[in-house]
Amino acid sequence: MNPFDNISPLDTRYYQKAVTKYLSEGSRIRYQLKVEAALARALARKKICSFKIAEEIARACEAVTPEEVYKEEKKINHDIRAVVNCIRNRIDHSSKPFVHLGATSYDIISTAEALRFKDFANSLLIPSLKEFLRTLIDLALREKNTIQIGRTHGRHAVPITFGFAMAEYVSRLGRRTQMIEEKANAIRGKFSGAVGAYNSMSLFFEDPEKFEVEILRELGLKPSTHSTQIVEPEFIVDLMHAVVSTFGVIANLADDLRHLQRSEINEVAEEFRGAQVGSSTMPHKRNPWHFENVKSFYKEFMPRMFTVYLDQISEHQRDLSNSASSRFNVEMLAGFLFAVDRLNRYVKSLIVDKRAMKRNLDSSKDMIIAEPLYLLLAAHGHNNAHEAVRRATLYAQKQGKPLKEVVLATPDFQQFFDKFTKEQMAIINDPEKYIGISARKTENVCEYWEKFFN
Amino acid sequence: MNPFDNISPLDTRYYQKAVTKYLSEGSRIRYQLKVEAALARALARKKICSFKIAEEIARACEAVTPEEVYKEEKKINHDIRAVVNCIRNRIDHSSKPFVHLGATSYDIISTAEALRFKDFANSLLIPSLKEFLRTLIDLALREKNTIQIGRTHGRHAVPITFGFAMAEYVSRLGRRTQMIEEKANAIRGKFSGAVGAYNSMSLFFEDPEKFEVEILRELGLKPSTHSTQIVEPEFIVDLMHAVVSTFGVIANLADDLRHLQRSEINEVAEEFRGAQVGSSTMPHKRNPWHFENVKSFYKEFMPRMFTVYLDQISEHQRDLSNSASSRFNVEMLAGFLFAVDRLNRYVKSLIVDKRAMKRNLDSSKDMIIAEPLYLLLAAHGHNNAHEAVRRATLYAQKQGKPLKEVVLATPDFQQFFDKFTKEQMAIINDPEKYIGISARKTENVCEYWEKFFN
Amino acid sequence: MNPFDNISPLDTRYYQKAVTKYLSEGSRIRYQLKVEAALARALARKKICSFKIAEEIARACEAVTPEEVYKEEKKINHDIRAVVNCIRNRIDHSSKPFVHLGATSYDIISTAEALRFKDFANSLLIPSLKEFLRTLIDLALREKNTIQIGRTHGRHAVPITFGFAMAEYVSRLGRRTQMIEEKANAIRGKFSGAVGAYNSMSLFFEDPEKFEVEILRELGLKPSTHSTQIVEPEFIVDLMHAVVSTFGVIANLADDLRHLQRSEINEVAEEFRGAQVGSSTMPHKRNPWHFENVKSFYKEFMPRMFTVYLDQISEHQRDLSNSASSRFNVEMLAGFLFAVDRLNRYVKSLIVDKRAMKRNLDSSKDMIIAEPLYLLLAAHGHNNAHEAVRRATLYAQKQGKPLKEVVLATPDFQQFFDKFTKEQMAIINDPEKYIGISARKTENVCEYWEKFFN
Amino acid sequence: MNPFDNISPLDTRYYQKAVTKYLSEGSRIRYQLKVEAALARALARKKICSFKIAEEIARACEAVTPEEVYKEEKKINHDIRAVVNCIRNRIDHSSKPFVHLGATSYDIISTAEALRFKDFANSLLIPSLKEFLRTLIDLALREKNTIQIGRTHGRHAVPITFGFAMAEYVSRLGRRTQMIEEKANAIRGKFSGAVGAYNSMSLFFEDPEKFEVEILRELGLKPSTHSTQIVEPEFIVDLMHAVVSTFGVIANLADDLRHLQRSEINEVAEEFRGAQVGSSTMPHKRNPWHFENVKSFYKEFMPRMFTVYLDQISEHQRDLSNSASSRFNVEMLAGFLFAVDRLNRYVKSLIVDKRAMKRNLDSSKDMIIAEPLYLLLAAHGHNNAHEAVRRATLYAQKQGKPLKEVVLATPDFQQFFDKFTKEQMAIINDPEKYIGISARKTENVCEYWEKFFN
Repeated sequence: MNPFDNISPLDTRYYQKAVTKYLSEGSRIRYQLKVEAALARALARKKICSFKIAEEIARACEAVTPEEVYKEEKKINHDIRAVVNCIRNRIDHSSKPFVHLGATSYDIISTAEALRFKDFANSLLIPSLKEFLRTLIDLALREKNTIQIGRTHGRHAVPITFGFAMAEYVSRLGRRTQMIEEKANAIRGKFSGAVGAYNSMSLFFEDPEKFEVEILRELGLKPSTHSTQIVEPEFIVDLMHAVVSTFGVIANLADDLRHLQRSEINEVAEEFRGAQVGSSTMPHKRNPWHFENVKSFYKEFMPRMFTVYLDQISEHQRDLSNSASSRFNVEMLAGFLFAVDRLNRYVKSLIVDKRAMKRNLDSSKDMIIAEPLYLLLAAHGHNNAHEAVRRATLYAQKQGKPLKEVVLATPDFQQFFDKFTKEQMAIINDPEKYIGISARKTENVCEYWEKFFN
Repeated sequence: MNPFDNISPLDTRYYQKAVTKYLSEGSRIRYQLKVEAALARALARKKICSFKIAEEIARACEAVTPEEVYKEEKKINHDIRAVVNCIRNRIDHSSKPFVHLGATSYDIISTAEALRFKDFANSLLIPSLKEFLRTLIDLALREKNTIQIGRTHGRHAVPITFGFAMAEYVSRLGRRTQMIEEKANAIRGKFSGAVGAYNSMSLFFEDPEKFEVEILRELGLKPSTHSTQIVEPEFIVDLMHAVVSTFGVIANLADDLRHLQRSEINEVAEEFRGAQVGSSTMPHKRNPWHFENVKSFYKEFMPRMFTVYLDQISEHQRDLSNSASSRFNVEMLAGFLFAVDRLNRYVKSLIVDKRAMKRNLDSSKDMIIAEPLYLLLAAHGHNNAHEAVRRATLYAQKQGKPLKEVVLATPDFQQFFDKFTKEQMAIINDPEKYIGISARKTENVCEYWEKFFN
Repeated sequence: MNPFDNISPLDTRYYQKAVTKYLSEGSRIRYQLKVEAALARALARKKICSFKIAEEIARACEAVTPEEVYKEEKKINHDIRAVVNCIRNRIDHSSKPFVHLGATSYDIISTAEALRFKDFANSLLIPSLKEFLRTLIDLALREKNTIQIGRTHGRHAVPITFGFAMAEYVSRLGRRTQMIEEKANAIRGKFSGAVGAYNSMSLFFEDPEKFEVEILRELGLKPSTHSTQIVEPEFIVDLMHAVVSTFGVIANLADDLRHLQRSEINEVAEEFRGAQVGSSTMPHKRNPWHFENVKSFYKEFMPRMFTVYLDQISEHQRDLSNSASSRFNVEMLAGFLFAVDRLNRYVKSLIVDKRAMKRNLDSSKDMIIAEPLYLLLAAHGHNNAHEAVRRATLYAQKQGKPLKEVVLATPDFQQFFDKFTKEQMAIINDPEKYIGISARKTENVCEYWEKFFN
Repeated sequence: MNPFDNISPLDTRYYQKAVTKYLSEGSRIRYQLKVEAALARALARKKICSFKIAEEIARACEAVTPEEVYKEEKKINHDIRAVVNCIRNRIDHSSKPFVHLGATSYDIISTAEALRFKDFANSLLIPSLKEFLRTLIDLALREKNTIQIGRTHGRHAVPITFGFAMAEYVSRLGRRTQMIEEKANAIRGKFSGAVGAYNSMSLFFEDPEKFEVEILRELGLKPSTHSTQIVEPEFIVDLMHAVVSTFGVIANLADDLRHLQRSEINEVAEEFRGAQVGSSTMPHKRNPWHFENVKSFYKEFMPRMFTVYLDQISEHQRDLSNSASSRFNVEMLAGFLFAVDRLNRYVKSLIVDKRAMKRNLDSSKDMIIAEPLYLLLAAHGHNNAHEAVRRATLYAQKQGKPLKEVVLATPDFQQFFDKFTKEQMAIINDPEKYIGISARKTENVCEYWEKFFN
């Protein structure tokens, strides 16, 4: 098959080899086969069949290929029955009855899904998130004292440090990663039959829930607290919420970083490689492509949460209107990992221009003192400080004079200035000191998450 | 590449060979090459280069492969510049300057996108929709006299015919198909340069808009009414709305048909093929799989409209946060076509059980007369007919007697019965006659859309 | 103001007096005043102002009305400054400077929001959810032995009990309620100033984070782990996810119950009150209105999660494009509570028709044995049991004979029947026994959640 | 009722008196009464009742109040039957039977909804949109020659004029307004009874479709092409799409204008009124509040389109799971109008700082020539112009020299410069001339839409 005949950008432009082990159609079938093998072994332990038969089945499960299964499905029009037939075709007649015995299709499908999502999270996604967190912590700590103007409404407010701005993402991403880890390891399997009441397993076992626990333990899973034909959907829904809300966090970071690359702001830049071309017509132009790309991935995948929510609803003991749609969950996971890895790579090599940060801060330096001035006047007893400072700024703007100069010359303020402490007066004289506890907070946040994940 | 290593179900389970010509990554590049060729020819007509050079470029455009372009992009990190370089590599030195001359990347990308979506719609999607409409018209006309109980709130209301129920979808799908046709043929291209003001083309042409018209005419497209780096997004947005709202219509039909297959209702059935397996544990079970599948496709793809809406917003003369996301539009189109074709196939072979329809109707037959009875009493002057009939039904239920019997024996009603016409009385006596103009309406709706598309 | 001039159905048709205390515009302002009072008291404890002044401010905070604040805002065009001015207007000149001292608007707004959402959850929402859980537990236990046919794809599968079907919702709703409780009590406040770096509070305190903890402790809240102008958005996002995913669970239940009221199924019914009118033209018609209504509320409010996700993104230290939108979060909370209460009321008075359940089960009774039969044949060594049973069912259908009769007469099966245990044979003879552990599972699930919330 | 007890921000903070006539709960009932009156008159024309009775009913319809209807509904639990009873209560016994005769609830509800949405659009929404278009046209024409740097990826690209940037929105908003007008006037009513087959009306009329046309004509509406209990949903869906996609356009404009107000860019400013307060702690700070607000409204209301799409699906001849949700459509309409009016007001008073635009352009002036230079070199035969210019810019940056200087001194380029026309050379010398047809295009777009709506 020619990969350029693929439709999904995930299978061409944004293809990642590593995820195929967990998220491809082939992996779906391979995990189902793993579950069938676990069932056979559990049946043997319960003496329903011999261990020899169980191992024969397990070996067959390893040998069956997705191609084979698809070929069989084409004939009989049932996906899991096709898996079963392929296993049966590879074993002795006398062993055949024990393949899939007592299971309903979704005992296999739901359990396999839980397993591969868990494996994907633990093997690829969480390591990537932790690596990205590492990148962010390093950046935040390195820049914890780099003064930058804080911005609200896109307008200059009061100063922070760039490290502090990055610590926001350490904190938010840390908590989200924790949630993904929690939810990925909480997803459940099931072996409770066609309608969840253990009808079939009850034919053989006094306590079919124990048997369910046993099969699932072999796979490292727990059973759903209640099930119908399928596991309670909320385990997956919560995992997907953890993913999509983390996507929101990284999209926010991508937005911040691409806006800081606006020509007029220019405080950071994406690394630009050797022969890279800036634009097809403007050869010099360097664009925040990769941050835009991460935002674009967010726009593509965030809305898919609504499919996940819609799939919560399944009539009675199950209708299959969530079957095809839930198959697409892998796209969201693959797209998310892609975005995390890309963002990590470009944050890691981010170019921070301290001089530009200083230049931008300086352009507002004079006005920054309005806030501490008003507060100190008020704290020292001026009973209309906010309004008084507002007027002083208007006057300064009109006169084209620095606010500091206007303020220091305002007779009404003198009596209050006398009460200012030395540190307080120092801030009025040098607004770059007005950064609160930016550096200390950055350190604390970074230290917390550093420890948390070690 | 092993297709089972693909992530998207669209590239494995739901793969459709036919759409690759328009929706695959390869097709994206091939259409871009078509646009580059059209540009070269237009330049020749304007005497910027010779016709010989233009044809040399056009031939190169036909020869370049997606593989080549991807290889080049890996080196230089720019997708369209890679296309350009691949063309340049296949032509003479003296021809090279005229490749892509005056164009910005998105002149090529936006125009190519418009073209392949239009081609996809006209070549595959609209024919499929018309074929499905044909199927529905045939079904509606065939069953125009098949009496079925009408249902509101899932409860028996008053009778219709099954053909009339299907005519709903003829009408809704007819209008939607008309809209898709209109919107697909209204999408536009552009050749207005990097920010839409024709900066580059103005270097060469007095009236660069004329030149734009000329290139696009060759491709069968019109220029966007205004453009920035990209075409006004609403052309694509409207097409996608047409698609997603049609998806709503077919999902509704799929829902209706799967509910009519509930065991207790059983009025229709999906065709079931030879060796098909009903369930992995209940061998006899026949499920409305394909109708569930269509609903599930709807759940997967409808939410993607929100990506399309989000992509309407692009800062200033363009930011690229809609670039990756818009690449996924092809998935929605492919998924929709898949659902239409599948639904068509299973509606075409739908098994309609008239006896079951009759049986279900009969179970409510007695109560159906409540509505015409109340109306006729009122029309003939009973001033509290609704309440009087309500009481009669409660009484009938309590007594376990047929409503008709109770009603005919109610002294208060006699004077009004005397005024009923023969036809009116006939309906009270046989509620199966109470189907309004079901058959006639079915014919009219079908005739309208049959003519419309011929 | 005439309530019929309101636009939102939440302020007319679906108006709930009780929620106004937490979710109305007036409550928004009253909670902001509470936060201003807490700030004043904390300032006094830190000796920035006297306790007398703090109490004067706190008294003013109790006296200020929303009307007043709106009037002031109209003059000065700033919502929180209007709150501040209204407090100032009610106190002595010398106390004025200490109102709002050191706080930025969003210290007040974010904290007030956290507080009222938490109060709403603890005072109204969680009690309602627990009451509903109680209703469901009672219903499940009462009907734990009521046999009902299990349904997959809307088709009869194998039997369960109605109590078991309800236990699904006990389990899912239990876990969701637990999550809402957890997330509602985890939301945070902040007092870290205009850009989150404690710039202003650092003017007065060595350790402004301690001061933040102190104010918030008075309100029963903790500070955000990191903040910009606003609290990290994920605390609210997680709460809203908990709400919207619970909405999915109750919508699923509503769907199940309305489908069970289809005329052909008729297993349950909504309570119908005295003078209630069924339909405007069909006086006898009883519809599952309230369950449809709950589903409709879900359709209205679930998509609003999209707004919550979009509001996660705020540029740099804050842009205000999430300000108006986040004001609408109250609608989602109000709508959800409405739906929970309504569903509770109609589930509590649900009419369960055991005879109808029996009748529906009986209609499929014969075919139910296909599953246990195939499984027992397989377990006892028949090496092609699934296919053999599939053929037997086709044969039975063709011959119009009961499956049981066909099966018992099949010579090939005899040798296996001999190996069946008495209990196994009993199930083949009476499929009503084939309900697995429906009753026991129901008990366990109910017991677990009963204990959990006591 | 205290308005501060309202939940929805639309009923407090964002309340608009004007819309209550069309979008309030009261208006819903008043429009239903209008439809009942039209029905009575049509019955009279068909001689089912006398004209005197019809007028008595029509007068009663004018007199009935929403309060009355709600009171009655509380008793009987049916909204339209309550309307009917209120009318009946005000008329003579002998007239009572003719109220609502032959109609089903949704004949009234669907028709009334269509009517008030149409009236709202024609009376308020479209006039507001046209006024806003007028504002944009005025702004675009006024600034058609104001040079501004074009921006892609947020980075300086090549120049345009600010008028041209605004013309984008004239064009997009023009087409959207046209679509809203088309779709609002295309919505339909219905009088086809409980399941759409004209069952009831067929009791009285040979051709009930004619009767339907007659009632609706009186209201200025056409009948749905097919109906079930309700009008085909796509008429409303298309109107809502027109609205929500227009919301995308105005959100995009709001985004552009708020980004142009970033401190570093500062090209435009929101009007700031007299006593207005900039920030609660930074008295001098002027924020793009209203543009942020419009964006926030978009985030609140765009996702509601999801509800509209979900409401397309209604089982069989209708289930009511779209009843409550469709009642909330009025919120989207009210929210959209609010945003349009607000944006109009602040665009109308927008402060444009031409000097800032010039300053920003100047900062990139030197690099701008890269594009025309490469193109002219290529057009004049340089066979590797893009790469040659790319290298020149890298060299210029390294050397800290102006690109123009570097380029003019490059020996390789001299032979090509000789071929440049005078106009071409002038652009290399003054990049401010490199604005393509910005002014002319602006004029044409404005002229087109000016004419279109006159």
